Amino acid sequence: MDRIVIIGLGLIGGSLGMALKAAGIRNTELVGVDLERDAVGAAKKKGAVDVTVRLASEAVKGAQLIIVATPILAMPEVFKEIAPHLPEGCIVTDTGSTKQQVLRWAEELLPSNVSFIGGHPMAGKEVPGIGGASASLFQRATYCITPSASASRVAVEVVVGLATTVGATPYFVAADEHDMLVAGISHLPLLMSSALVTMITQNPSWDELSKLASSGFHDVSRLASSDINLSRGITLTNQAGMLHWLDSYLEVLRDYRRALAENTEALLEKLSSARDARDQWLLHLSEPQRDRLFQDLPTAGEQMMEMFMGGRLAQLLRQQEDTLKEIESKHPRR
Amino acid sequence: MDRIVIIGLGLIGGSLGMALKAAGIRNTELVGVDLERDAVGAAKKKGAVDVTVRLASEAVKGAQLIIVATPILAMPEVFKEIAPHLPEGCIVTDTGSTKQQVLRWAEELLPSNVSFIGGHPMAGKEVPGIGGASASLFQRATYCITPSASASRVAVEVVVGLATTVGATPYFVAADEHDMLVAGISHLPLLMSSALVTMITQNPSWDELSKLASSGFHDVSRLASSDINLSRGITLTNQAGMLHWLDSYLEVLRDYRRALAENTEALLEKLSSARDARDQWLLHLSEPQRDRLFQDLPTAGEQMMEMFMGGRLAQLLRQQEDTLKEIESKHPRR
Repeated sequence: MDRIVIIGLGLIGGSLGMALKAAGIRNTELVGVDLERDAVGAAKKKGAVDVTVRLASEAVKGAQLIIVATPILAMPEVFKEIAPHLPEGCIVTDTGSTKQQVLRWAEELLPSNVSFIGGHPMAGKEVPGIGGASASLFQRATYCITPSASASRVAVEVVVGLATTVGATPYFVAADEHDMLVAGISHLPLLMSSALVTMITQNPSWDELSKLASSGFHDVSRLASSDINLSRGITLTNQAGMLHWLDSYLEVLRDYRRALAENTEALLEKLSSARDARDQWLLHLSEPQRDRLFQDLPTAGEQMMEMFMGGRLAQLLRQQEDTLKEIESKHPRR
Repeated sequence: MDRIVIIGLGLIGGSLGMALKAAGIRNTELVGVDLERDAVGAAKKKGAVDVTVRLASEAVKGAQLIIVATPILAMPEVFKEIAPHLPEGCIVTDTGSTKQQVLRWAEELLPSNVSFIGGHPMAGKEVPGIGGASASLFQRATYCITPSASASRVAVEVVVGLATTVGATPYFVAADEHDMLVAGISHLPLLMSSALVTMITQNPSWDELSKLASSGFHDVSRLASSDINLSRGITLTNQAGMLHWLDSYLEVLRDYRRALAENTEALLEKLSSARDARDQWLLHLSEPQRDRLFQDLPTAGEQMMEMFMGGRLAQLLRQQEDTLKEIESKHPRR
């Protein structure tokens, strides 16, 4: 029996468990850990895990794969707690929204005989926590993968297998590039959205404004409702990237302002180009996502990777376990 | 038989027709006009109108109520075209996104013996045109009403009846206040959204960024896909309001930037307050919208207004028709 442990049974952790179960992963026990009793109960009820264990240090014993899906800022504590109990050669991955700091913590706090692979599935929801979890959350989502320097090839393949098994598209990206990209496509929109809500709701006319708020305001303001733990984690670990994009955005907005004040035709050209660009993007999105599914995978061709779907993840975990036993037989644990 | 004419069978015009039909309006012929053959065909197919007429000047003959639902910038032409053919005492209303300029055009171009009532149902959709039209588009939406100085009380009541019959909440607001409010809650979000798309899609890393785009970017960028005719109408008729709010937004964003650079705790407080404010708003939205349904109605109590639902609109139109006949008998048309 293989053992996959999910630490942190929120939206992402819970959905990973549900997606793994839905994929019919075989001979594998899914073990869940969460500090909050309610989350543990809900995860069990939703069938996101087979069993739950109170302590992370206990749960990781005998595990091949450990998924840390807690808020980013809780990760150093989790790493410290599990470090002395991790089986040699096991794989640890996370689901945090930024990657440089998490890799630094892993390097510093996890033993060198485990493989750490950073992970970040690009999926979210307005409803946070296990309540919003679903088996389909990662369908067609991009799953960023940032292996640590010391990660084994098999470990990388296991995390690729995890991503594809839950329906996502693995995407290899260096941690610093990842953080800069998400700062633009995801963290800046959070700031924009929140700043709009600050401005509108603090205006003396908010009572009247709210009567006229329709689906446009609803959508553009949606990210302002993001989980504050998530925002905290992002802000404290990706400040430089966020500043970079915020400056760039301020510049574009000033361009827009100039055009609006001086030359409305120039503004309409901007609006029109942006519209075309977004339409192009939507068109591209509607193409079968398979086309770009494995294009960045450095270790294997598409054919091989497709085998991950279904039973291949279990097979890889077994292979990993054999490696592990081999290592242990050579270097018996104290 | 009463006659309601809808000029412009796009998203709003088509949906108004469908909503009126769905409300089971009696003894009334719904007449549709559109320059585009396709829109006319689709509107008939969707049952948005009973009959279509090629020329607006022809369609308005014998009408009690004329709804101009064309793009704003087409309105002066429409007003000029219908003006010589409007029955005395009839009611003209529009559905444009800004109101000051439309009221000016109405004042200038429509005969003084018709009642003009500005209207603006706060509802939209990503899918523009008759294709996106639906009978439920206005359910629970706020319907702004800005009567002209010379509009008769019955005319105002008819447009209130129109709003409630299609499921919306009438909201009386002065034209200048309306334009300032929508500039903040609706036109600024359009600029924000479009500026984000401009910045992101013109970045050299757009290929990589697009891989990481998820529902957050999708929602915040949605308004960038707005119909360019709509954007043009807004920009050319509400420039001052848009500049006002854009300046205010730039200021708030600079505050956010300062906090991000110097004091992340201060930024987190902003994010947290914005989150609370939006949650409050959502909570308020979920209350039965009836509570604020008639609070701004100057002419009549709730009980009377409720009668508009259903047959009351037809009844009012008949009343209007009697007035019209009375006027005509006194001042026969040349």
